[in-house]
Amino acid sequence: MRIEVGVLGATGMVGQQFISRLSKHPWFNVTWLAASERSEGKAYVEAAPWRLAAPMPEAVRDLKVVGCVPGRGPKVVFSALDAKAADELEHGFAAAGHIVLSNARSHRMDPLVPLLIPEVNADHLDVLPAQRKGKGWPGAIVTNPNCAAVVLAMALAPLRPFGLRRVQVTTMQAVSGAGYPGVPSLDILGNIIPYIGGGEEDKIERETLKILGTDAGRTEYPAVISAQVTRVPVVDGHSMTVSADLDKRPTVDDVVAALRSFRGKPQALELPSAPMPPILVMDAETRPQPRLDADLGGGMTVSVGRVRPCPILTHKFFALGHNTIRGAAGASILNAELMKADGLL
Amino acid sequence: MRIEVGVLGATGMVGQQFISRLSKHPWFNVTWLAASERSEGKAYVEAAPWRLAAPMPEAVRDLKVVGCVPGRGPKVVFSALDAKAADELEHGFAAAGHIVLSNARSHRMDPLVPLLIPEVNADHLDVLPAQRKGKGWPGAIVTNPNCAAVVLAMALAPLRPFGLRRVQVTTMQAVSGAGYPGVPSLDILGNIIPYIGGGEEDKIERETLKILGTDAGRTEYPAVISAQVTRVPVVDGHSMTVSADLDKRPTVDDVVAALRSFRGKPQALELPSAPMPPILVMDAETRPQPRLDADLGGGMTVSVGRVRPCPILTHKFFALGHNTIRGAAGASILNAELMKADGLL
Amino acid sequence: MRIEVGVLGATGMVGQQFISRLSKHPWFNVTWLAASERSEGKAYVEAAPWRLAAPMPEAVRDLKVVGCVPGRGPKVVFSALDAKAADELEHGFAAAGHIVLSNARSHRMDPLVPLLIPEVNADHLDVLPAQRKGKGWPGAIVTNPNCAAVVLAMALAPLRPFGLRRVQVTTMQAVSGAGYPGVPSLDILGNIIPYIGGGEEDKIERETLKILGTDAGRTEYPAVISAQVTRVPVVDGHSMTVSADLDKRPTVDDVVAALRSFRGKPQALELPSAPMPPILVMDAETRPQPRLDADLGGGMTVSVGRVRPCPILTHKFFALGHNTIRGAAGASILNAELMKADGLL
Amino acid sequence: MRIEVGVLGATGMVGQQFISRLSKHPWFNVTWLAASERSEGKAYVEAAPWRLAAPMPEAVRDLKVVGCVPGRGPKVVFSALDAKAADELEHGFAAAGHIVLSNARSHRMDPLVPLLIPEVNADHLDVLPAQRKGKGWPGAIVTNPNCAAVVLAMALAPLRPFGLRRVQVTTMQAVSGAGYPGVPSLDILGNIIPYIGGGEEDKIERETLKILGTDAGRTEYPAVISAQVTRVPVVDGHSMTVSADLDKRPTVDDVVAALRSFRGKPQALELPSAPMPPILVMDAETRPQPRLDADLGGGMTVSVGRVRPCPILTHKFFALGHNTIRGAAGASILNAELMKADGLL
Repeated sequence: MRIEVGVLGATGMVGQQFISRLSKHPWFNVTWLAASERSEGKAYVEAAPWRLAAPMPEAVRDLKVVGCVPGRGPKVVFSALDAKAADELEHGFAAAGHIVLSNARSHRMDPLVPLLIPEVNADHLDVLPAQRKGKGWPGAIVTNPNCAAVVLAMALAPLRPFGLRRVQVTTMQAVSGAGYPGVPSLDILGNIIPYIGGGEEDKIERETLKILGTDAGRTEYPAVISAQVTRVPVVDGHSMTVSADLDKRPTVDDVVAALRSFRGKPQALELPSAPMPPILVMDAETRPQPRLDADLGGGMTVSVGRVRPCPILTHKFFALGHNTIRGAAGASILNAELMKADGLL
Repeated sequence: MRIEVGVLGATGMVGQQFISRLSKHPWFNVTWLAASERSEGKAYVEAAPWRLAAPMPEAVRDLKVVGCVPGRGPKVVFSALDAKAADELEHGFAAAGHIVLSNARSHRMDPLVPLLIPEVNADHLDVLPAQRKGKGWPGAIVTNPNCAAVVLAMALAPLRPFGLRRVQVTTMQAVSGAGYPGVPSLDILGNIIPYIGGGEEDKIERETLKILGTDAGRTEYPAVISAQVTRVPVVDGHSMTVSADLDKRPTVDDVVAALRSFRGKPQALELPSAPMPPILVMDAETRPQPRLDADLGGGMTVSVGRVRPCPILTHKFFALGHNTIRGAAGASILNAELMKADGLL
Repeated sequence: MRIEVGVLGATGMVGQQFISRLSKHPWFNVTWLAASERSEGKAYVEAAPWRLAAPMPEAVRDLKVVGCVPGRGPKVVFSALDAKAADELEHGFAAAGHIVLSNARSHRMDPLVPLLIPEVNADHLDVLPAQRKGKGWPGAIVTNPNCAAVVLAMALAPLRPFGLRRVQVTTMQAVSGAGYPGVPSLDILGNIIPYIGGGEEDKIERETLKILGTDAGRTEYPAVISAQVTRVPVVDGHSMTVSADLDKRPTVDDVVAALRSFRGKPQALELPSAPMPPILVMDAETRPQPRLDADLGGGMTVSVGRVRPCPILTHKFFALGHNTIRGAAGASILNAELMKADGLL
Repeated sequence: MRIEVGVLGATGMVGQQFISRLSKHPWFNVTWLAASERSEGKAYVEAAPWRLAAPMPEAVRDLKVVGCVPGRGPKVVFSALDAKAADELEHGFAAAGHIVLSNARSHRMDPLVPLLIPEVNADHLDVLPAQRKGKGWPGAIVTNPNCAAVVLAMALAPLRPFGLRRVQVTTMQAVSGAGYPGVPSLDILGNIIPYIGGGEEDKIERETLKILGTDAGRTEYPAVISAQVTRVPVVDGHSMTVSADLDKRPTVDDVVAALRSFRGKPQALELPSAPMPPILVMDAETRPQPRLDADLGGGMTVSVGRVRPCPILTHKFFALGHNTIRGAAGASILNAELMKADGLL
């Protein structure tokens, strides 16, 4: 018996990715697609300008797209809404009893809303009773991080026992992170843009500290992060150079061992989307590379390379993750899997 | 009366750039082209697989390419030799009385050889008498920096009065930095490579400290630099994120003012290749960008953007320079112009 | 005494190119900038999101942008309006006495409007008296072709004496041809799109025959053209493979000689924007290439390579031209220069 | 019981692709890896600079690489040798009794050697008895086509019943078609090269006519093909515009129906690598696109779009195929599957 799920913002790029990944999911079955008024009443195949390489799943082609009205549709809904729509709609769905697994930034920094990476902070779901009480929602909102923050947080999580104190990160972010139409080709062909709007650097710095934090996310991790972001002519895969200050001065081998042996609840529970290993440390000094390695572990593995000493902070390395899978739809689905395993759906 | 000059390694990519830029130079006249045995005796038009967009200058088409034999050719020679050939040949030219303006890495870190950026350390030419004495060369070798180090050193030079202590730099380097054939397209199309061979990170860290140093380059600047390099699918222009620790805690406005007002001897002397300004601080938060801005100042201006506070070190910013102009041929030519103005040619 | 000119649609991408090129023009002086209501009343520097590598000309920074109201502004106006705005506005300007040099498609196929390439069909200006009479305009509209049609028409014009009968053309068009924001990077990075909207293939086929035609453009050239267009990840420069059927069966040498010796009125009159040669036939079988050769002749030269026999039609070759210079702003300016020389301004 | 197979030229790019695809093959088992002297005696993991995104199959990591000595190794060998090595070695293997499934060009145009696309000309295997007799080989050589010719031949095969007479084709070929290191990034980033060496145009024209021919490939198909090739900044997937002259003047619907209903022996036999459908006609006018569609059918499907009338020949369309799968390793493996099914292994 698969669980019926819905998708909010089903016609957009992230909505398509939810649908594509969910179409083969062993636990979930997409039966309800909601989008803006423009699409209402149309068959999905008519409403959605499908842009993924994988063809549109047969099962959704003839589903009729409905409006984003709370209280309709299944209990579990994945939200691919953009921030503005999410601001207006998601709390209504939670108030109407839905469990909203959201990819939007709207509620991420709310102390009562889990900002979840199941491998890193599965215990942050413990805030849900307080959320229910504080918000008065019979349902719930659970969020996944910004597409660059998730890669950084995954790579840093195993380093917490070493006394992580300061982190310098420079990202090289793929164009798919900006959605569609997103980055104009005239801006990025053979080019680098030293800026990403919407407070990207701030999100990376703040979300990462919440994710790594304690007390179900209500106490920020006590470190300082400084982010510099760039956009690069890469389709999928956010890359980043990271320098970290580790108080306990572990050896490079210690750091590599900690990254390699890192496992979380998804691996213990063998959740369907759990990558194994969650973090892959590559030996070749030329790896990871986004075009070759972003798809590792079905796009859910974060890969790391070139771990070495840093003469200013203590260690530096290169990290990579798939921004639209580990950084968006795949993340939300893993969140839902964890909630299901925890009896929260 | 223009000064006759020669080019060592005239048929390669950097050699072509020397020839192209020198062909319009008001002071220098290329009359002697030397290359490996394979090219010896051929007309330049036959010997060189010309790869620049600008057509081959008429004046060199029929010049006969000769071997790299010290003592032949004009006193002033620009060296576009690769490191291995430079290791073997350059000192011979200096020993035979030539002034060698070298783009190769071979002698850059030699304490008796100037590693020169005329705006930054024009006084490093003062080591030449010691070089003559120490090496026993009637001629001289003067070098320009690695193509990423030069951009970093230019951007840092105006910050020395603020007590520059630590620098984190992540580079995003263009493919032209690897010469021809250089980076295979299969490796870099839509991709990032987190590594550049030949000790690139070490060069950036060490050369920058020598350039910024005192006592004509014999005393390293007392700072620590940590570099992480990447190769990106950009044709020309090395970009970098920089975080710097400035002891005196200047304001962002102070830092911008220092960068904007920075001038060097080339500007004072109005040397032909001197860009004005040498450092351009751009206001738009999306600039500089390599495809739009690498050519500023004829490729000799270093551009900087997004100067802002860093929560770990004190300031961070983005910098860009043209790697084959400011980072190679243009740099050597500016060095020669300074030497000419100083009466050293 | 320079002629005062205005620009309609001054804030967009093509408008910026007009302004950039006109700022250094020996005959014309931009004194009037018109755009949509959104920009009205603002200084140009505030109104235009400048996107060109060359900085905004000082002279226009503080010009106040006005509305597109016929009868205001100078007699000569360059139109960078998009098709929809051009449909509504350009005839009003002609009716109000302006000479409109238009880059828009709106009036190109009107038999009373010259579709002008000064090297190819300078005599098409002879339709202007009929235009004045037929339209009742005291002013005039003169258009330049679609950005791919102009390259094809230039390359074919010298072949008319050989009895040009059929032409197969496949284009590989740069993203700048779609304006800004234009082609989303997600669609074109590492990709080819086998389609360009807006009737691109039809425009290439029909405009080319009008351009090559007789009776001041009222009689189409008697040939058949079949176009297949693609979008490629190139910034500037439309490339195309061309197969042509030449009735008189010239030798390859004859064809090359005809292309090389081709001259038009702009060359005879030495107009400021006239490239010399207008068509450059390159010898290397790997040329022309858009990144290396689109800028030839200040972007006004069309380059051709690999002229050879075709076993189906009679000859085939590769052609390239700069789509935003020869294919847009540069074309309109050359049209204005010709009109000036002909005493029509 | 899987059949043991070997790979000649196992360490190169095509060799790696053979090994990667064969590692999951239900019928074949790679037990023998041969390469040049440089690699002899090393474990494969040491000898091969692995460049594929998919990791090196465990089963081959420790296989010892041997020299390319005929008579050693299994009966069935896949040849990933470059043309020069293939010229020297392949016939020796056939003479020693091996069945050589070759991706090299060396023997493709030999009238006694099948140039095989199983969907198109499965009957060309009938030449093998004549090959055995004419060459005196107890083994055999069977080849697959050039990576662009295979796409064209697949797309044209269903059109033969319409009286295919003339074909104009312009290719836009991916960089992976040139192997590794192949095309320098400096040549192709943001660029188009109007030429591919090694007689690419000639291969496409001649191989296609042999493939479509009769009498087991000894009688060329009676048509004329004119090819113009270009290299584009795409990683995988050769695209092409095709104009075809079909004597019987079918409607566009007839042509689409013929392409869509096309099936070959691989589909009838349900061979492991047989794509279904072999040719996919896409409805969207913007498809196929190499980045989205080259992987269709595991890289073995040829996709076609925009079938429409041509005013010069009769029909035109856009076609795409994966050059290193359908155009190389996948093609040879499908050939082997057909031979196995035909009892020829």
